[in-house]
Amino acid sequence: MQARIRAIVEHPYFERIIIGLIVFNAIILGMETSERIMSVAGPVLVSLDKIILGIFVVELVARFVASPRGFVRDPWRWFDTVIVAIALMPASGALSVLRAFRILRVLRLVSTVPAMRRVVQGLIEALPGMGSIVLLLGLIFYVFAVICTKAFGGAFPEWFGTLAASGYTLFQIMTLESWSMGIVRPVMDEFPWAWALFLPFILATAFTVLNLFIGVIVDAMQSEHAAEAAAERESLTSDNEKILAELAAIREELNRQRRS
Amino acid sequence: MQARIRAIVEHPYFERIIIGLIVFNAIILGMETSERIMSVAGPVLVSLDKIILGIFVVELVARFVASPRGFVRDPWRWFDTVIVAIALMPASGALSVLRAFRILRVLRLVSTVPAMRRVVQGLIEALPGMGSIVLLLGLIFYVFAVICTKAFGGAFPEWFGTLAASGYTLFQIMTLESWSMGIVRPVMDEFPWAWALFLPFILATAFTVLNLFIGVIVDAMQSEHAAEAAAERESLTSDNEKILAELAAIREELNRQRRS
Amino acid sequence: MQARIRAIVEHPYFERIIIGLIVFNAIILGMETSERIMSVAGPVLVSLDKIILGIFVVELVARFVASPRGFVRDPWRWFDTVIVAIALMPASGALSVLRAFRILRVLRLVSTVPAMRRVVQGLIEALPGMGSIVLLLGLIFYVFAVICTKAFGGAFPEWFGTLAASGYTLFQIMTLESWSMGIVRPVMDEFPWAWALFLPFILATAFTVLNLFIGVIVDAMQSEHAAEAAAERESLTSDNEKILAELAAIREELNRQRRS
Amino acid sequence: MQARIRAIVEHPYFERIIIGLIVFNAIILGMETSERIMSVAGPVLVSLDKIILGIFVVELVARFVASPRGFVRDPWRWFDTVIVAIALMPASGALSVLRAFRILRVLRLVSTVPAMRRVVQGLIEALPGMGSIVLLLGLIFYVFAVICTKAFGGAFPEWFGTLAASGYTLFQIMTLESWSMGIVRPVMDEFPWAWALFLPFILATAFTVLNLFIGVIVDAMQSEHAAEAAAERESLTSDNEKILAELAAIREELNRQRRS
Repeated sequence: MQARIRAIVEHPYFERIIIGLIVFNAIILGMETSERIMSVAGPVLVSLDKIILGIFVVELVARFVASPRGFVRDPWRWFDTVIVAIALMPASGALSVLRAFRILRVLRLVSTVPAMRRVVQGLIEALPGMGSIVLLLGLIFYVFAVICTKAFGGAFPEWFGTLAASGYTLFQIMTLESWSMGIVRPVMDEFPWAWALFLPFILATAFTVLNLFIGVIVDAMQSEHAAEAAAERESLTSDNEKILAELAAIREELNRQRRS
Repeated sequence: MQARIRAIVEHPYFERIIIGLIVFNAIILGMETSERIMSVAGPVLVSLDKIILGIFVVELVARFVASPRGFVRDPWRWFDTVIVAIALMPASGALSVLRAFRILRVLRLVSTVPAMRRVVQGLIEALPGMGSIVLLLGLIFYVFAVICTKAFGGAFPEWFGTLAASGYTLFQIMTLESWSMGIVRPVMDEFPWAWALFLPFILATAFTVLNLFIGVIVDAMQSEHAAEAAAERESLTSDNEKILAELAAIREELNRQRRS
Repeated sequence: MQARIRAIVEHPYFERIIIGLIVFNAIILGMETSERIMSVAGPVLVSLDKIILGIFVVELVARFVASPRGFVRDPWRWFDTVIVAIALMPASGALSVLRAFRILRVLRLVSTVPAMRRVVQGLIEALPGMGSIVLLLGLIFYVFAVICTKAFGGAFPEWFGTLAASGYTLFQIMTLESWSMGIVRPVMDEFPWAWALFLPFILATAFTVLNLFIGVIVDAMQSEHAAEAAAERESLTSDNEKILAELAAIREELNRQRRS
Repeated sequence: MQARIRAIVEHPYFERIIIGLIVFNAIILGMETSERIMSVAGPVLVSLDKIILGIFVVELVARFVASPRGFVRDPWRWFDTVIVAIALMPASGALSVLRAFRILRVLRLVSTVPAMRRVVQGLIEALPGMGSIVLLLGLIFYVFAVICTKAFGGAFPEWFGTLAASGYTLFQIMTLESWSMGIVRPVMDEFPWAWALFLPFILATAFTVLNLFIGVIVDAMQSEHAAEAAAERESLTSDNEKILAELAAIREELNRQRRS
């Protein structure tokens, strides 16, 4: 039984059919956003969506049965399971917003198409190297958020009323969106020295983010370059080994001549 | 006949005259945008434009006759033909907007000036390497567009009413233009949790676009570096070959001494 | 006495406890920004804050006593001392704004966690190489600020009234925030030639900042690459040394044969 | 006489005094922007400015007399002369705006401080490599400016009324400043298909500018790397030459043994 299911699951057509179903599901979910299409073909689309969701559940169960260990160990399978589970949750009342998240099922494309999986894994692997810089950025944000909330929270409750509001406003300032005309100039009308707080913040975050970028660039270049340099070094080293072997042979030859 | 036309078409002056005509045509089309100039010299400009267009048609026919196979195989010739064809279409009534596209003829500079052609080909060659990352970006856009249309379409029909409107608004947010003061803050007045959707979107697209850039940079550096490294390796390898040849000679010499 | 204090100060647990206290202090200072929490637990938080500040003072005194010379020479210790001193200053009346700066104590994380210290030192070490470009940027700013104040100061006192106001507005323009719709278009309504001033400013600063970035990137790559190249060169050099030693041995052997 | 002037002009203190005067002049010109300072010390500042200008004229004449040929050949001296000449022009009536340009004298710092001169020369040397990409960018701008003027000039004369207005608006859109909320959304209210024009424009210019940046980065890296690689190759080549010389010696030794 298990062997049979595994044969089906690992068949090359199986993956293609699943990818086709994900794309088809994505189109259906996109059509569901249009009221005009829904008024004409609403029930059909909803039933199709439910059928595809059913197939996905069967697919995941089959994959689990085919190889329970491999399933549990593969983080992409967990990703698939969580995404399908979200779609299975009852989405009525306060949770009706979860209906919108059914579209996350499209993200199964990332876990199913190997090329996409490689790209995303590449992006995720770049993250750990950013650790300490992201921590530093978080620290800068926290410090400035506390200062802004204390200093401007009273006068500008919408922007700096709470720590969370300050954090959001500082993120906006970091992206340079309306930082001056929208936020800092109005604040400076009340607190003329406010520029002495926001300009260092902009420079500090710009410099930190720049270093984050450079870190990623240097890393990417490094790994490309390392492979190349290794190949080059190897070719030179093998040349040198040939030369050394040749020299050893000559020396032995000389020794033999002396002994004779 | 064909040989004679080819002689004309491949004459170095032919290309220069065509480039001159394209630049002259560009100036005329620029002058046509000014009502003041049009009221004075309108008919002259329009006739000149028609004459140049006629020359371009004759030129393309001549190029085709000179070498039909080369013409059909060269994508730049297809580009020229499409551009000239647009200008030949009747531009009255609903298609009057096509008149504005006559300026596309200026783009023939790209296909005619070799230096420009090389730059554009370089840009186009950088595209395929971006494939999977652009696909990922498209996926992120689609998922967020569907969620935003479902969640905010009712309250903000202008920004998120349809899938296309959401896509445009998300593109605006990705470019960071008025994302907070213009879009997200108003949305957060209705849905206070909206930041939990838009901040991940900004971070995800920024990170993906950054990786797109890095890919292009690393690629460009790679190809420059590869050429350089090859030259270096070759010089070292040829040295090593000289050394090995010398060693072989010495060994043979030693062997000869022993035999003698 | 000194030896005993040093033993405590250099104990691995000591650093961990201090880091824990800094994080705990950061949380307290964050909670103090919320009026709701303050109305419930205000006195407790304030006392906890004072106790932690007291511990920091004791800690710094202990570190000084443990090794006065090392303390005076280490710039990070000066950093710690200044930050704690700010918190000790009386913050009443005109200086009440200093209360907000107590959060700077959280920056002690940077001086205490070794990984953070390394990141910040890396960022600071990148600064000297930027010297002349930052100077050039300052010169561009000064020149344009004087021109703008003279030319537009009368008509737009809020933006260009003083040298400082012009400098701030030019910084905003450099970050491209509302530069056109917010500043340059209104100015062009009065002075139609204003674009001839601001467009060169934008291009000049963009180009200078780009070169600043490139300098940092090339520097970072350089230092990574230099280490790698050194390793490679060393391995090849040691190969060559082995070959040369071998050749010397062969030559000596030949000489010996001749003499015998 | 000439030799004496040259001795003065080339004295190390001479340059320092001139640099000091330029900085002092910059401060005076900065103070002249403040009405409060002008009302107190206006005449003093204006006279000081005139005296320094006189010294600059004398300095340039002295430099010319000291070495007429060197003066005429050095582009930096031409730069100095033009800047001083601007300040000598009568600035009354319609030319009163030229008064603001007296501050350009501060740019003499660039031509006088060697470190600054090197930075600016580095920036200028990076320009020629950008030639064809800047040309391509200009072409894109021209084509879109003509299309926008034709299509939107009637409905939005302020933004797209003339070719120059369209060019300025497109530059604003390229910098992404208020491109959507400020320009494209209002245009789309009239012409719903306008996004099909502006989105390709944004993508095309972003991609072209990115390639401009990459070109500069790769160039900078190239020249740094080339110097390094040359040093490395030289050291390896000299090793190989030593080995080859050694081998030649051994061979000769063997030949001598045979002959004996």
